[in-house]
Amino acid sequence: MNVRVKGRRRHYRTVSFSARTNEVILIEQRKLPHTFELTRTKNFKQTARAITNMTVRGAGAIGATAAYGLAQGARAFTGKTEAAFARHIQRVYETLAAARPTAVDLVNALNEVRAAMAAGKTISQKQKLALRAAEKFANDDVAHCEAIGTHGAKLIKNGTRVLTHCNAGWLAFVDIGSATAPMYAAQAQGKNFHVYCDETRPRSQGAALTAWELAQQGVPHQVIADNAAGHLMARGEIDLVITGSDRTLGRTGEVANKIGTYTKAVLAARHNIPFYVAIPLSTLDWNLKSGKEIPIEERDEAEVQTAWGTDTRGTFRQVQIANPTSPARNPAFDVTPAELITGIITPKGIFKPKELWRERKRLGVV
Amino acid sequence: MNVRVKGRRRHYRTVSFSARTNEVILIEQRKLPHTFELTRTKNFKQTARAITNMTVRGAGAIGATAAYGLAQGARAFTGKTEAAFARHIQRVYETLAAARPTAVDLVNALNEVRAAMAAGKTISQKQKLALRAAEKFANDDVAHCEAIGTHGAKLIKNGTRVLTHCNAGWLAFVDIGSATAPMYAAQAQGKNFHVYCDETRPRSQGAALTAWELAQQGVPHQVIADNAAGHLMARGEIDLVITGSDRTLGRTGEVANKIGTYTKAVLAARHNIPFYVAIPLSTLDWNLKSGKEIPIEERDEAEVQTAWGTDTRGTFRQVQIANPTSPARNPAFDVTPAELITGIITPKGIFKPKELWRERKRLGVV
Repeated sequence: MNVRVKGRRRHYRTVSFSARTNEVILIEQRKLPHTFELTRTKNFKQTARAITNMTVRGAGAIGATAAYGLAQGARAFTGKTEAAFARHIQRVYETLAAARPTAVDLVNALNEVRAAMAAGKTISQKQKLALRAAEKFANDDVAHCEAIGTHGAKLIKNGTRVLTHCNAGWLAFVDIGSATAPMYAAQAQGKNFHVYCDETRPRSQGAALTAWELAQQGVPHQVIADNAAGHLMARGEIDLVITGSDRTLGRTGEVANKIGTYTKAVLAARHNIPFYVAIPLSTLDWNLKSGKEIPIEERDEAEVQTAWGTDTRGTFRQVQIANPTSPARNPAFDVTPAELITGIITPKGIFKPKELWRERKRLGVV
Repeated sequence: MNVRVKGRRRHYRTVSFSARTNEVILIEQRKLPHTFELTRTKNFKQTARAITNMTVRGAGAIGATAAYGLAQGARAFTGKTEAAFARHIQRVYETLAAARPTAVDLVNALNEVRAAMAAGKTISQKQKLALRAAEKFANDDVAHCEAIGTHGAKLIKNGTRVLTHCNAGWLAFVDIGSATAPMYAAQAQGKNFHVYCDETRPRSQGAALTAWELAQQGVPHQVIADNAAGHLMARGEIDLVITGSDRTLGRTGEVANKIGTYTKAVLAARHNIPFYVAIPLSTLDWNLKSGKEIPIEERDEAEVQTAWGTDTRGTFRQVQIANPTSPARNPAFDVTPAELITGIITPKGIFKPKELWRERKRLGVV
């Protein structure tokens, strides 16, 4: 999407690749919203490190980074024998796969690139096919988000006040985003609407990243405390909720997403406000039979006790908010049951959560 | 309640008075939880300023501070004539009344002290009566909180996991608190239980003040993000919710309290978790006919965009969390309907919200 740099709007992808210099180019997300900066990784190890240290985050963006990282590693090979190349690729694959152990998209992306390389007869051919497959993975991610936007934009009318939670925006993908895709598509159609961004404590991705994205794109929006949405709904000031999903159960329609998503779904149901979840097909889990089986990551209590931001001099700092002698608990995700979800916006159309299983062939189950 | 200072536990009230030095003694709440410090105001103007600048906050604590401030002003009078004394008292009254224009308890406290002074025949008698009335106001506040504790402690059993929101603790009163009173009473009865403190963004009173209080008293507790309670309820890890109230409508049972209270009530109702509101009688509003008539203060958007805390060197700092070019919205209170409230814990017992009006004589309507 577009970013204003020194007064000029330029189009950037979250993840891209320079074939000339063999570098992966990433938006440095740890410095947002305070500083917009691109990082170039010079080799596959640096690329893996950028995934680990959260320079890049979000399912689609991590997947594309890993895909490019594998191509980067393949293209850097200067040995002669097929056997040495195979050993090298295995090492690159394992290094990248270990960068974020729980990210499913990362492994899917690596497998896609490796499978494509198999068709090459020479090392040089395999190197070319690797890059082509990585480019395809990234372009597919963009195309899927575009399709989510086309379907979801119908939900946004002139005057609609949309609530979103966390960041399922273009920074979490190669471009466009999932939950934000309907907004950007509606904007392109000339619709006027307003977005409320939940702050999304403890990591404040809504206040920091989604708000930054919307500001860059010129979408009218306001940040609200996570506590405020219930009040705004009760006063009739929210018409639609769209969030992303980290994992969507194809069998039950349950959605695991950033902590607080469930709360917003409960509030929306009470006020008869439509609650939609926008997903790329890669987040669909066709195996689990119940949301109770989803392991909920409990993260470091320091995230709850502190906040990150810039001080009056612009220096990025972490401050202790909570009483220093008080422990904290930090569940990072929650599960929203199907009954609270009006629809799932996918690249293939909008489905009721209970329809996913019936439509599983269309949705990519092989 | 007790505070550990240099390894020793000592009992402090949030607000007290030194008759010898004619000073109001306040816990400096703006430095909590990072530094525990007492402030002494030397005259009624300093006392008014301590109310305005939020050295002291919370309905009961502000009321007692104003009552002592009026006594302090009366006792500082060194003139001779009754007429000059009356003019002086009027000036003290108006200065204190203007310190926080919307605090109902403040004006009630001032009126109580002024009415008591009327019985004095000489200036000296009036000065003594002023102090006696201020002490009575403060002691009554403590007694009311104690009675809330006695009634509310029955709700807490061994093993109960209690959720509370914001700070309706002893820092908001002269001592003990309202929402915390049942917890401190249950602790005194030897019960073992656990408290979850909602952070309560944007001002984080739960993470900063309630957590500090509970840590000082040795009540087991954890701070959670405002987003986390829904998940914990869904997993069966919360048994009881107790919050305070800024205004309780005697006619309808609706409760206006810190933003986010309504959300917790909606979640509790969905999970059949009892939701109680603890109130001193002074927060009862017998006039308004609907919660829709309650004006909801919209505070400075900077509260949502930033957070306050201490950096690694212990320096108190405000940091910008949100995207700096994004506006915010900051409603400070919300309204919880009677249907979501299991009971109102008052110094006179626990009532269903719809019973308040029938019991209005017992609850102090004159």
